Amino acid sequence: MNEVIEFIEQGIEKGEFTKIREQIVKLNVVDIALILDELDEKAALIVFRLLPKELSVEVFSYLSKEQQQYIIESITDREIKNIIDNLFMDDTVDVLEEMPANVVKKILRHVSEDRRKLINQFLQYPEYSAGSIMTIEYIDLKKEMTVGQALDKIKRVGIDKETIDICYVMDQSRRLEGAIPLRKLVVSEKDVVIKDIMETNIISVHTHMDREEVGNLFRKYGLLAMPVVDMENRLVGIITVDDVVDIIEQENTEDFQVMAAMEPSDEEYLKTSVFRLARNRIVWLLILMISATFTGSIIKKYNDMLSSVVILATFIPMLMDSAGNAGSQSSTLIIRGLALDEIRLRDFSKVLWKELRVGLLVGLTLSVVNFLRIYLLDKVGIQIALTVSGSLFITVVTAKIVGSLLPIAAKKLRLDPAIMAGPLITTIVDALALLAYFRIATWLLGL
Amino acid sequence: MNEVIEFIEQGIEKGEFTKIREQIVKLNVVDIALILDELDEKAALIVFRLLPKELSVEVFSYLSKEQQQYIIESITDREIKNIIDNLFMDDTVDVLEEMPANVVKKILRHVSEDRRKLINQFLQYPEYSAGSIMTIEYIDLKKEMTVGQALDKIKRVGIDKETIDICYVMDQSRRLEGAIPLRKLVVSEKDVVIKDIMETNIISVHTHMDREEVGNLFRKYGLLAMPVVDMENRLVGIITVDDVVDIIEQENTEDFQVMAAMEPSDEEYLKTSVFRLARNRIVWLLILMISATFTGSIIKKYNDMLSSVVILATFIPMLMDSAGNAGSQSSTLIIRGLALDEIRLRDFSKVLWKELRVGLLVGLTLSVVNFLRIYLLDKVGIQIALTVSGSLFITVVTAKIVGSLLPIAAKKLRLDPAIMAGPLITTIVDALALLAYFRIATWLLGL
Repeated sequence: MNEVIEFIEQGIEKGEFTKIREQIVKLNVVDIALILDELDEKAALIVFRLLPKELSVEVFSYLSKEQQQYIIESITDREIKNIIDNLFMDDTVDVLEEMPANVVKKILRHVSEDRRKLINQFLQYPEYSAGSIMTIEYIDLKKEMTVGQALDKIKRVGIDKETIDICYVMDQSRRLEGAIPLRKLVVSEKDVVIKDIMETNIISVHTHMDREEVGNLFRKYGLLAMPVVDMENRLVGIITVDDVVDIIEQENTEDFQVMAAMEPSDEEYLKTSVFRLARNRIVWLLILMISATFTGSIIKKYNDMLSSVVILATFIPMLMDSAGNAGSQSSTLIIRGLALDEIRLRDFSKVLWKELRVGLLVGLTLSVVNFLRIYLLDKVGIQIALTVSGSLFITVVTAKIVGSLLPIAAKKLRLDPAIMAGPLITTIVDALALLAYFRIATWLLGL
Repeated sequence: MNEVIEFIEQGIEKGEFTKIREQIVKLNVVDIALILDELDEKAALIVFRLLPKELSVEVFSYLSKEQQQYIIESITDREIKNIIDNLFMDDTVDVLEEMPANVVKKILRHVSEDRRKLINQFLQYPEYSAGSIMTIEYIDLKKEMTVGQALDKIKRVGIDKETIDICYVMDQSRRLEGAIPLRKLVVSEKDVVIKDIMETNIISVHTHMDREEVGNLFRKYGLLAMPVVDMENRLVGIITVDDVVDIIEQENTEDFQVMAAMEPSDEEYLKTSVFRLARNRIVWLLILMISATFTGSIIKKYNDMLSSVVILATFIPMLMDSAGNAGSQSSTLIIRGLALDEIRLRDFSKVLWKELRVGLLVGLTLSVVNFLRIYLLDKVGIQIALTVSGSLFITVVTAKIVGSLLPIAAKKLRLDPAIMAGPLITTIVDALALLAYFRIATWLLGL
């Protein structure tokens, strides 16, 4: 890639534009966009204008929002019109959502009344909804058509994107009646009627469904495209699998970030500014720092005990870490299961019963190993060893149960399970671990 | 779904098999498989045998491995042959990989010599490689063909799956020369020669490439299918996007589990036994419990200090938690960036420089807030307040740097970044935090 960039920069200096164009049109459209993102703005604009019209529109949809903005601000009104008229609707909406208001205005000035209305409607779908990721480029057929007529229509309309791999059959009022993959049309006889070969058992979603659920449906049924309908079951758009792949990774990234106590962000790490990175992290660190005070106050309460039996302080980190680790193991599995729709709210008691048994098994193993180690190796005396191992057992079992219930409770309260459980679980089980520890010590050591 | 299951169970009792068949064939194949998984083995077998031949093969590929095994063990040799002959190659391999040796033997007895050879070759591809997820059902064309001839061939061969949405062009020795989407064939004139419209700039992978990288390529280029070639660039199979969606989620699940200190597992939570869940968690908990001893030994070393200034113990949880949280924020972002190929090894110094600045910003904010809080609210005295806040600052900066470097170091050493960094980071930064704390206390409090 670096060679291509050098080649282009030298070519621009020497004015060898035809050479540049010849080389660059051979590349994949995604790679062309990546190269333009690497070039400085002026060079990128020159190369962008060298591209054939059709290719330039496609490249535009893959550019970073900075380059998109610079290009929109630099090119002529006619060039803007060419781009916006030929972008797919989902890409148009993506572009507009990222641009500042004045640029959006500039863009919308150049589109037809009808398209502007449509764009505005798309911009109103809630973020992360099916409506916000669908596109309107698809082939619609009527069920009375023959295969031959359908293929003729496709040839005439001819959208070149995966959006025609599946065609949709609608009635007069645009209500969805069936679907038929292009490949089925191709292998069928010309005089067969669509009605007789179309699939009527179609998985569709409403415009307001959350995109995470859309992703789960694509995965469950192995779909390539999915129709989006309004409340009256009228077809308003389709979602294609290439967009879903992106969405799945974005949703996962968000969950990773939330579980590591950060504000979720779509931006690539290396492209995010230091200030933004710091801002995304600081809020949760502050919240967690202050809630850890609660744990500290438990220690404070038992300070006298700690000064009389100083060895007790030694085991605090081990107890706290084991509690945190045991708890996040459970919460991670449950959060993941909820996100993938493998665990439902009604599985509540199954999960509880499972985690209780896992907790007993794991807790027993850990506390036996711990007992042997500190009694035989550290020679701490049987009462201390019993106190530490007993607390460890109770801690692990509690952490497993709390760790599995918190995400389910969060989901029930319509909160993001990842937010509720990930960052908070450690703080909660730490406090519980210390409480158990000091209670058992009071009792066993007679303090 | 529960109604359908009830309907089937009652139907079986009454012997109303035609009724059951009529109802069930209307459902989506994935849903039929889910229903069969819910039924008891005998009922599932009855319903399975009611299905039309072609549908039964498809349903079989979606069943749980337990039901698959039960069915294979219960049906006749001819029925087995029908299933195995008609399964797609990637599904065949999936089935065989999950079955016990005696069942595999039973299956392989019934396939032709050629297919058995091919299956054995597929079974030898490394787990998680491109070869292990590809299939061999695709349409191959010659570049001299016209569009009309190509469409005739597709109609004749007629595989009904997304595997024909893109056709591949090969030379005499099966070397990949180009690709052409079915939709392009459909919209082109019949007498156009394939050579003139095929795409030659094709993204392909080798059989041994890791499936995570395959997923990244699908996402980057928005692909629907990708050819897999051997060392001589001969086409040996294709990977389709529906399988990639599954793979992406599996890879993500693995990363979530590894980062939460568990052995990764593909199984759904509710379907995993308590023993297996416990086993997956216990090893890491033991390792981490024992390494926390190290942190404990630091406290032990400073026990005298803690007994003379008991208030110091109060802040240990806050310091340890903040260290762990700050560290895992950084490690999570870097692990994710590495997995998505957004961060490369050569970005090492960029990451370091970024995290240093983020660490300074975040550390400063946290320690100032902490200083004000404990000095003004807890009224701990300026020396203690300085000790705690100073340690917090150093801890956060260190945690950010260690948290960002560990995953990169792991990747450099060809270890899974998620394994190295996730579970271990807390233990490491905890120890560092305590060391800093006690050093600063020794110095500032003159102990």
